[in-house]
Amino acid sequence: MQLSLVDLIAHKRDGGRHAPGDVRRLVGAFVAGELADYQMSAWLMAAFLRGLDDDETAALTDAMLTSGAVLDLGDVPGVKVDKHSTGGVGDKVSICLAPLVAACGVPVPMVSGRGLGHTGGTLDKLEAIPGFRVDLGADAFRRTVREVGTALIGQTPEIAPADRRMYALRDVTATVESLPLIVASILSKKLAEGIDALVLDVKVGRGAFMKREQDARALAGALVRVAGRGGKRAVALLTDMDAPLGRTVGNALETREALEVLRGGGPPDLVACTFALGAEMLLLAGRATSTEQAHAVLRAARDRGEGAEVMRRLVAAQGGDPAVVDDPAGVLPRAAVVREVRAPGGGYVVDLDPLALAKAAIGLGAGRTRAEQRVRPEVGFELAAARGDRVEAGAPLVRVHAASEADADRAAAEALAAYRLGPEPPGARPLVLGRVTADGGA
Amino acid sequence: MQLSLVDLIAHKRDGGRHAPGDVRRLVGAFVAGELADYQMSAWLMAAFLRGLDDDETAALTDAMLTSGAVLDLGDVPGVKVDKHSTGGVGDKVSICLAPLVAACGVPVPMVSGRGLGHTGGTLDKLEAIPGFRVDLGADAFRRTVREVGTALIGQTPEIAPADRRMYALRDVTATVESLPLIVASILSKKLAEGIDALVLDVKVGRGAFMKREQDARALAGALVRVAGRGGKRAVALLTDMDAPLGRTVGNALETREALEVLRGGGPPDLVACTFALGAEMLLLAGRATSTEQAHAVLRAARDRGEGAEVMRRLVAAQGGDPAVVDDPAGVLPRAAVVREVRAPGGGYVVDLDPLALAKAAIGLGAGRTRAEQRVRPEVGFELAAARGDRVEAGAPLVRVHAASEADADRAAAEALAAYRLGPEPPGARPLVLGRVTADGGA
Repeated sequence: MQLSLVDLIAHKRDGGRHAPGDVRRLVGAFVAGELADYQMSAWLMAAFLRGLDDDETAALTDAMLTSGAVLDLGDVPGVKVDKHSTGGVGDKVSICLAPLVAACGVPVPMVSGRGLGHTGGTLDKLEAIPGFRVDLGADAFRRTVREVGTALIGQTPEIAPADRRMYALRDVTATVESLPLIVASILSKKLAEGIDALVLDVKVGRGAFMKREQDARALAGALVRVAGRGGKRAVALLTDMDAPLGRTVGNALETREALEVLRGGGPPDLVACTFALGAEMLLLAGRATSTEQAHAVLRAARDRGEGAEVMRRLVAAQGGDPAVVDDPAGVLPRAAVVREVRAPGGGYVVDLDPLALAKAAIGLGAGRTRAEQRVRPEVGFELAAARGDRVEAGAPLVRVHAASEADADRAAAEALAAYRLGPEPPGARPLVLGRVTADGGA
Repeated sequence: MQLSLVDLIAHKRDGGRHAPGDVRRLVGAFVAGELADYQMSAWLMAAFLRGLDDDETAALTDAMLTSGAVLDLGDVPGVKVDKHSTGGVGDKVSICLAPLVAACGVPVPMVSGRGLGHTGGTLDKLEAIPGFRVDLGADAFRRTVREVGTALIGQTPEIAPADRRMYALRDVTATVESLPLIVASILSKKLAEGIDALVLDVKVGRGAFMKREQDARALAGALVRVAGRGGKRAVALLTDMDAPLGRTVGNALETREALEVLRGGGPPDLVACTFALGAEMLLLAGRATSTEQAHAVLRAARDRGEGAEVMRRLVAAQGGDPAVVDDPAGVLPRAAVVREVRAPGGGYVVDLDPLALAKAAIGLGAGRTRAEQRVRPEVGFELAAARGDRVEAGAPLVRVHAASEADADRAAAEALAAYRLGPEPPGARPLVLGRVTADGGA
């Protein structure tokens, strides 16, 4: 006899394991309106507390994935690879990574998100480019990937609607921070992109969703294993998010910094992060056979300006002005007020709290606390001094880009409080903390 | 800073303890529509899996109780005592107990329930008496208790609306079988009756909600402790429900049997259960100082016909024909078909499965599988042979009261299957398995 939907909730409540078909029934009934929101939220809490194993998580991913449209990029030649970051502060990697990898001959179809809470969103950053549209339909997305090599769009309503509804419930029922639910949510959207392989950037630290390395490692392991069950090769890097990535926080400022990387500049940590993730993408695509070779391929594409050229074509294809790549200052919006905050004393920047800085940026209007809020593209922070830098008393520490003097006053104080100066330089911290593959190798 | 409602769900999810004020906030927000059904069901699942301690359960009880009207029986003199049963098969005790205890001078305001699932409901049994109304308003209820000594009504919409809505959610989210949630649900309704003390009949066995004695003991302990925190003295008896109580199952048949007890007859187990619970009520009311004295008082009230006289007045006050007390067969509805099932062989009744019999009774129309169903008052079973009885081959085992020959055919086969005959008499089983008081004494 088939168990009722309530029996399935009770089964998970009691620590039972769901057969894949039962997970599909739950999600299917939810999408069809036969399982009510209050029943799904009870199941989500039971799943949160009792857990889901890899088979259940893979079944959940598949059920959420097939609740909507799955893009078919079969007419785009090559091994298509995407990158997903679990989110951090100053994480503008996608904007330089996608064109650079595409310039190496690897198609990068990328469906990104918006910022929510303290983490920024790639879509918000790209929309700082006047005219840039992230709402391409499936056909335009496919065509852009084929013709340009990459496209960066937002999630369409057709992609994984079950995930969207379940996420909305999780957000208000204290069931967000569940590893298997996070894995299924991420992968159901990424696997709907028509990709062949996926690189995951699992951020670790105060500015990340995962504060502790062991939790990040568990999430990375589950992501690559469950992606593998969905037929996609995946590799995850654990990268440091205990300080902001790069030297800008805020949408237009971050886009400008990412464009600098394509032109051969940019801060060392952002370049390193971009190259580390890009190398994994090239390896998965078979475009390189060693990390060293992959780095050389990426470097050559950058140095020959091929990454920047893909970016020009991408911006043009998505409705923006390609001049932004070479003259960001001339194209991107500028803040009404730019305030320089100077170091109250000399010393080393021994700590720069990414979460405090992110909250100050939200206060400026760079981010959202609710999904329906609009962001200001032009506001944020330029970090004149980052973690490990030595500063003299009175030297510039941070520049605040604000919409008003009052905003600048408040944000200046908040940004200053995010810095901690000390007499000794802080210990070195590696950017890449680990590498996780489906077979558990490092 | 006050925690948000979602933070409160997360707190219980993580195994935290709620302050009483936080429990009240959750229930208050739910009643006010600020906490959605899907949020309450997530909290209910978290509470199910993480538990609630006595303080939290008492706060939940109080919040649900004060979500609605609390009857004030201050103008009814005496210590008012009620009895609540967790439900069993053939449990018609309330119908003889309430008038008998009232006849001893202890007011018994009793708000009862309807049958759902395999357990019968006192209201359905009373409504087998033509004209009997269970929907008295608060004023008529108060007046009847004052003038007759007892009244038996159904839950009004004003009583504990939070419990009604939470129970409806629990029913469809697999969160019914939680000890603290059960305790709060029972007590929030009982404490709204304006009682001073409460006797609990916690049934144990296959025909009960609690199948195992240790679970029943835990429930009984929580009920008396939490009632005590609500300012009500309470005692619980654990009583056997591994066989039907008495010799009838079905609404009119059970009412008839309960009336027999008031006239000095009735099956020994039903009489013993009624007296054991009645004695506890008299002790709580200060009407007796020992169990022996209480039994003597009850016996005298029965033997002098005072219990029957209260019942006549109660039936009249609630709209029924008081002649039912002395001539049940002449007043109660009778089934169209009465079928006698005979023993296929001789031996002892070593087992009589209460759950199987209850399901057969539902099949006849005596009970409900959904709350909106109507019950047939006249159908059910008369047990000619009960557990422990010796029967000869071909002797009557059970009489089926049915609405049609087809119903009788099916129910006869089902009833026969509920019996197990054997060559040796079964071991004796005590009716009262334990006594639980707030101080843990027995």
